[in-house]
Amino acid sequence: MVRTNPERRNALLDAAIEVLAREGARGLTFRAVDKEAAVPAGTASNYFANRDELMMQVGNRFYERLEPSPETMGKLTTGPRDRDTITELMNEIVERITSFRTGYLAQLELRLEATRRPELQQVLTERVRADIDFNVRNHLESELPGDADSVLLLYLAINWLILERLTLPGIFSEEQAATLVRMAVERAVPAR
Amino acid sequence: MVRTNPERRNALLDAAIEVLAREGARGLTFRAVDKEAAVPAGTASNYFANRDELMMQVGNRFYERLEPSPETMGKLTTGPRDRDTITELMNEIVERITSFRTGYLAQLELRLEATRRPELQQVLTERVRADIDFNVRNHLESELPGDADSVLLLYLAINWLILERLTLPGIFSEEQAATLVRMAVERAVPAR
Repeated sequence: MVRTNPERRNALLDAAIEVLAREGARGLTFRAVDKEAAVPAGTASNYFANRDELMMQVGNRFYERLEPSPETMGKLTTGPRDRDTITELMNEIVERITSFRTGYLAQLELRLEATRRPELQQVLTERVRADIDFNVRNHLESELPGDADSVLLLYLAINWLILERLTLPGIFSEEQAATLVRMAVERAVPAR
Repeated sequence: MVRTNPERRNALLDAAIEVLAREGARGLTFRAVDKEAAVPAGTASNYFANRDELMMQVGNRFYERLEPSPETMGKLTTGPRDRDTITELMNEIVERITSFRTGYLAQLELRLEATRRPELQQVLTERVRADIDFNVRNHLESELPGDADSVLLLYLAINWLILERLTLPGIFSEEQAATLVRMAVERAVPAR
């Protein structure tokens, strides 16, 4: 029988994220997760039917942990309706994701693993699509300047900027990254 | 003594790319490369001092194989000096890189591996920086519309678009990808 204590399950998923980031997808075993979570051997296998199931749940856990704070969501709805507010929100996103370094690296490992696992690819595709739709909808409802294309262009540019910062930090300094975010907003959001 | 027959060396690097894309960084062993290249066991170890050396050379091989054709470089210098020419060049880049699927996936595996290997990180950083500088310089010399920021924004957006197409192809269809490229150029390159 698969166990369901949600706190324990989340602790195991968080341990799996650390293992993925450190060891790569191939290093992800139930044994490694148990060890990382400092729980008795055999615990992870009580919570996940198999390794595929574990990876699919890790894919969702990443997004759970990255949910914007009520404060950030508040800015989206109450800040001035201008590009500066968008830049501030984008900087907040870059900061939030970059600080969860292992989560982002684990997500990239899963994307590569998904090229070999159709079921995982399907789960990640649904999750990423939901995330994009959520961002487009929020933006349009917020009446901030910019259209759906602005959101998509920022989604593409900001994601690669974060990947660059986390995998080859020597390419763009933190300061250059902030300048790139400002420039990306200026270009992606046409002047009204 | 390390062997230096350049054709054999390239064949081994190409085999390493296939192994990386299929098995991930952890699957990259001299034995797997020999097998993939269909050469006698022990061949790869005659060409590369160690696994790190092999990975660093793979990082460069990817760019060698992606060099634009003389025809493409011609378009850069002789096509009309407008956004349509830039869009055409960008579509050509997306097509060129997407067709070399295993090369791009191998490069992502190397970027993740680089988070664990400072020497590899340094080699990849130099190669990526040279590539960015090359693109900025070419663009400015070409007198196409747009500035250095246009090139950087397109670099960021197009790279993630390719990553999305190759890892989660269900997110954007080929047609949507083409629309996104056109839109990215329109926004990244301000009207004169």
